[in-house]
Amino acid sequence: MIEIDEASKKIFDQTLPISIKEIDLLEARGFVLAENIFSDRDYPPFNRATMDGFAISCANFSREKKYKLVQKIFAGDHKNIQIEANECISIMTGAALPNGLDLVIKKEESQIVDKDCIEFHTEKIKSFSNIAIEGEDLKANQLVLESGSLMNSQNISLLASLGKPKIKIFAPPKIMIFSTGNEIISIESMPEKNQIRDSNSFYLRSELSNYNIHPESKIIPDDFELISAEIKNANPFNIILITGGVSEGDSDFIPKALIDLGYEIIFHKVKMKPGKPFLFAKNLENQFVFGIPGNPLSVQVVWKVFIENFLRKILKLNTESKQKKLFEGVRFKKTNFTEFFLFRYKKSKSSIEEVRHTGSGDIKSPSFADGIAIHPSHLNEIKNIDLEIIEW
Amino acid sequence: MIEIDEASKKIFDQTLPISIKEIDLLEARGFVLAENIFSDRDYPPFNRATMDGFAISCANFSREKKYKLVQKIFAGDHKNIQIEANECISIMTGAALPNGLDLVIKKEESQIVDKDCIEFHTEKIKSFSNIAIEGEDLKANQLVLESGSLMNSQNISLLASLGKPKIKIFAPPKIMIFSTGNEIISIESMPEKNQIRDSNSFYLRSELSNYNIHPESKIIPDDFELISAEIKNANPFNIILITGGVSEGDSDFIPKALIDLGYEIIFHKVKMKPGKPFLFAKNLENQFVFGIPGNPLSVQVVWKVFIENFLRKILKLNTESKQKKLFEGVRFKKTNFTEFFLFRYKKSKSSIEEVRHTGSGDIKSPSFADGIAIHPSHLNEIKNIDLEIIEW
Repeated sequence: MIEIDEASKKIFDQTLPISIKEIDLLEARGFVLAENIFSDRDYPPFNRATMDGFAISCANFSREKKYKLVQKIFAGDHKNIQIEANECISIMTGAALPNGLDLVIKKEESQIVDKDCIEFHTEKIKSFSNIAIEGEDLKANQLVLESGSLMNSQNISLLASLGKPKIKIFAPPKIMIFSTGNEIISIESMPEKNQIRDSNSFYLRSELSNYNIHPESKIIPDDFELISAEIKNANPFNIILITGGVSEGDSDFIPKALIDLGYEIIFHKVKMKPGKPFLFAKNLENQFVFGIPGNPLSVQVVWKVFIENFLRKILKLNTESKQKKLFEGVRFKKTNFTEFFLFRYKKSKSSIEEVRHTGSGDIKSPSFADGIAIHPSHLNEIKNIDLEIIEW
Repeated sequence: MIEIDEASKKIFDQTLPISIKEIDLLEARGFVLAENIFSDRDYPPFNRATMDGFAISCANFSREKKYKLVQKIFAGDHKNIQIEANECISIMTGAALPNGLDLVIKKEESQIVDKDCIEFHTEKIKSFSNIAIEGEDLKANQLVLESGSLMNSQNISLLASLGKPKIKIFAPPKIMIFSTGNEIISIESMPEKNQIRDSNSFYLRSELSNYNIHPESKIIPDDFELISAEIKNANPFNIILITGGVSEGDSDFIPKALIDLGYEIIFHKVKMKPGKPFLFAKNLENQFVFGIPGNPLSVQVVWKVFIENFLRKILKLNTESKQKKLFEGVRFKKTNFTEFFLFRYKKSKSSIEEVRHTGSGDIKSPSFADGIAIHPSHLNEIKNIDLEIIEW
């Protein structure tokens, strides 16, 4: 039986060979970019009017003059225009300035004095006023976004601008979920009195969907041969999550099945409650197996404390540092195990209180909690102290 | 031109008729439950062993006795067993206790003294020790989860346990996105020098995907007839998001097109920067149109400040209260508009600094920011004060 920190380390020390995948830009949200992205051209790609107004050459500006309006340029127009010193053109926001023109005077600082005849009453002028200059934001071939960047909506917008309908990301691992137990039936079935529905795979699939991962899942009865065959068949998956069957009851076949199939049991049993029989194994093909005790809270604790962080590491996502919050109340424990208990925020969100959990079969209380708080192994009594928490 | 708060209120006061939809439980993450969920039976559904051990009737317990092991019961078994006062059964965690037996003694507190002969050295016994009692968590037909609950993984797990493969949720509105502008081309196309790719619809679609909404989108040139026809055709959608074409340039056709089609312009122009030409309209069929200035930062500001909250209201999600953070630096503004600027967290995350943004065409800087900070309308200079922020 090992300590929590040792278990974390043994998991975190493992690596999966990096796998990179090209996906549609629109599906990239939440993944991490696996290539450097360079600018395809200058940005802005042309001298662009940032206001509706009138364009002239700075050198020809005078408040005494009247200018003849000779053209109108809209965004998207691409006209080759030459104007005289006493002429101007009307230009719309977003339009490209014709070569040689370097000043846009706002509509509000202009006056139409006669048909097609404009006067400007700008106080002071400066070349390139109201113009975004070609290349001022990005130069062609400049590194814009580095491999390792999290793809949020801002980055998706940026890469759309740069013309990247497909991008490379660090690929999610292929995951298989096995829910084991003779008492487990699918959620569509009507249970006999002694049966319960398979909720754990729904929990795990919901959490994985948060990472755009849509694993397969299967229910297996407590049958050594069947379990062995299914694990063997799960060869194409990088990670197998198994709930149930890892304790020491006479129908807990997972550890023996794994050993017989040549897996190395990296650890089995951790000084934690709930979750003590937690098992971690791997085989020579670098496939990882997490064996998780089957009661819902154990599954949720083991996921949040260990597996989610390992997945984030594989996906190259930041593993968030744990928060601390003031625990209001008193709590006792008897063993030297680390205990995880359900908490809910008190109104201010600056402190937490315990949510009562009636035991391993309590399916309801996690829904009324905001996450898991950690009762440290070395303290038998805790009272109004800061505790590490993990939010749902 | 109206103030920010007035614009917010005018949007927030609007309602869409509530629409409810039945979806697969696994797709419910992030939606809000639109029905009350009741327990289908007692939970636990049977008296369940919470430990591996031996079951007897409490009344027959004695530390002096030897018990004959007559049966083994596994999780999922449903045996009708009667035992004598000097007999016991072996029981696994999760298994149902036979009628009449109300005590499970842990393996560790038992000793096999002879073949099939057990002695117990438990210090003190209590009826229903190591047993989860039928119905102790939930009674049949009890209200378990109320309409209005956010579907997180915990609730998905709970409703899987209760046998709800399909549930009713508050349905997302149908949304159409129009990117307008002669200069706008699809991101797969190679732009001419005067053209830019349509990044705004990617931004909006990425943000909407966060709410499991997958809108349609289309590019429309600055052509009054085309714009009018497309808006008319978008009749089946509850919300239209239009980027570009809402300012006062000669090719800004959106306001007139909407008026001609019978929309009421609820407001046009807000005292904000960026985003001044922001427009909000609705028609008699309760279809809403958001007209957003087309530069990327305006779109991101208008989305985060106004539209996302309106969407959250429709979906019955909490609209989060704004956070405040210490702004480190100095910032000036000239107008009495509310200004929104890009911020990034300083190391501690307790303070923020400004991220430089070169103007309306700057596609890059939002990627290097953590969100938008609000420079209040009444302060021309801000310096080391707490500001409201909105994270990406």
